[in-house]
Amino acid sequence: MKLLRHGPKGQEKPALLHTDGTVRDLSPALPDIVPGTLSQPGMAALRSLDASTLPIVPQGRLAVPWTGMRKFIAIGLNYADHAAEANMPIPKEPIVFTKTVDSAVGCNHPVVLPQGSVKSDWEVELGVVIGTRARYVSEADALNHVAGYCTINDVSEREYQLERGGTWDKGKGCDTFGPIGPWLVSADEVGDPQDLSMWLDVNGERQQTGNTRTMIFTVAQLVSYLSHFMTLEPGDLITTGTPPGVGMGKKPQPQFLKPGDVITLGIERLGEQKQTVFAWDPELIDG
Amino acid sequence: MKLLRHGPKGQEKPALLHTDGTVRDLSPALPDIVPGTLSQPGMAALRSLDASTLPIVPQGRLAVPWTGMRKFIAIGLNYADHAAEANMPIPKEPIVFTKTVDSAVGCNHPVVLPQGSVKSDWEVELGVVIGTRARYVSEADALNHVAGYCTINDVSEREYQLERGGTWDKGKGCDTFGPIGPWLVSADEVGDPQDLSMWLDVNGERQQTGNTRTMIFTVAQLVSYLSHFMTLEPGDLITTGTPPGVGMGKKPQPQFLKPGDVITLGIERLGEQKQTVFAWDPELIDG
Repeated sequence: MKLLRHGPKGQEKPALLHTDGTVRDLSPALPDIVPGTLSQPGMAALRSLDASTLPIVPQGRLAVPWTGMRKFIAIGLNYADHAAEANMPIPKEPIVFTKTVDSAVGCNHPVVLPQGSVKSDWEVELGVVIGTRARYVSEADALNHVAGYCTINDVSEREYQLERGGTWDKGKGCDTFGPIGPWLVSADEVGDPQDLSMWLDVNGERQQTGNTRTMIFTVAQLVSYLSHFMTLEPGDLITTGTPPGVGMGKKPQPQFLKPGDVITLGIERLGEQKQTVFAWDPELIDG
Repeated sequence: MKLLRHGPKGQEKPALLHTDGTVRDLSPALPDIVPGTLSQPGMAALRSLDASTLPIVPQGRLAVPWTGMRKFIAIGLNYADHAAEANMPIPKEPIVFTKTVDSAVGCNHPVVLPQGSVKSDWEVELGVVIGTRARYVSEADALNHVAGYCTINDVSEREYQLERGGTWDKGKGCDTFGPIGPWLVSADEVGDPQDLSMWLDVNGERQQTGNTRTMIFTVAQLVSYLSHFMTLEPGDLITTGTPPGVGMGKKPQPQFLKPGDVITLGIERLGEQKQTVFAWDPELIDG
């Protein structure tokens, strides 16, 4: 089941991508895709619908596939080969940082560089969407708390993240730095989250290639681990780290995003994104 | 103007503490204290009410004084003498980390220790509540974006924060780790945010004494600074660092919170808090 929200800003409607490739309007069945929709009963209710009887609608602007996200938690250096390119040791425990919920945008939203930014970078990542509250859950039980998965671009300003003192959070929460989607794909449809290939191109050139099977900490481990430090609530999003190939690690010199660049990325079974990079312009964020 | 929300969990009502010391019901005037209430027009509308004509109501359980917080941003080591006791250098730029919005609770809510926690600690801090969106604002303009101030206890698990790898966020976002209030005091009533004395006791013994005049980075500097890395939205909360006297810095040995401890704390003009510390018990969080 592929859930999405689409339409003009502030007027998004819930929909699903049917198996025949058409977009089916969910708004007769539910007002919006909210945290409660992502619970096991909520997802079961959606699965029980006969999608072929829902109205076919033209796809509008794609928004974040659900609303009501309270936390956008991120994991650093979760692929051994990415840690190597970043010149950082393999972590003994997951590295946890926070993206602002305001950084979350639809999958094809412009990526707007902060004023004066010269070190903005890309990171294709598997996003994990919590469906059922998780608090001190075991690894064995952890995936029962996951509603589904999505493609994420964890856009990062490396100067802000690494050269301005303190934690990484400064370089991770800028407006438009969290494209999500196109869809939230239900966990049952995805199957094993540790066998998904992923890629990212800039201007058509392949930059990142990876597979979630090389994660240091699995999705189940991450959900369990995080749930010991904070309560994960329905609608919370965990982005789980990136494989090698980020701009910061390029040889002989780093390569960063500049206005006009086009980023395309995707994860197997989760769909693809396309963002154009712009210089700072608040109209592009709020428009 | 002192705004508050009170009543049983999930049924909180908006109110204000009148100058005569009575609690006056605001629910005839507005359904709740939401981010829009905190805008300059929203606060002006509240100021225009004749509070003496509002119904007097008995004060119920105190909740977070507003709803709809999207970000709970925290500043580290913002008092030079606290940096010294923590054995950390004085930061050149503000240290920024994130507390979960779920950690926010009312001012007298139990503080519940995470399972197995042996290094939970206290931090009295000045909270700054955003009223008007702030994005690339100057220091000179920054305070125009502040709706008001509140007392915060930035409860912190030092092992999670400092010994588990990665950023500080792990030790800051546990359930109940962010008591707020009792009130949101409007900026006009507070006046200069850099001249507020503050204190914190554990079991009646003074632990922290300070004044916001010894902050390294002022409120205006912090709001301006943060607004260059993320958009601050109405209802967002910034907690601005703690003066000396935290448990981690005690000599000859650190002192941490244990079940049964009673924490009292306050900031001049912003009101006082009282929390009892409990061992892990989910009933105390959700009840």
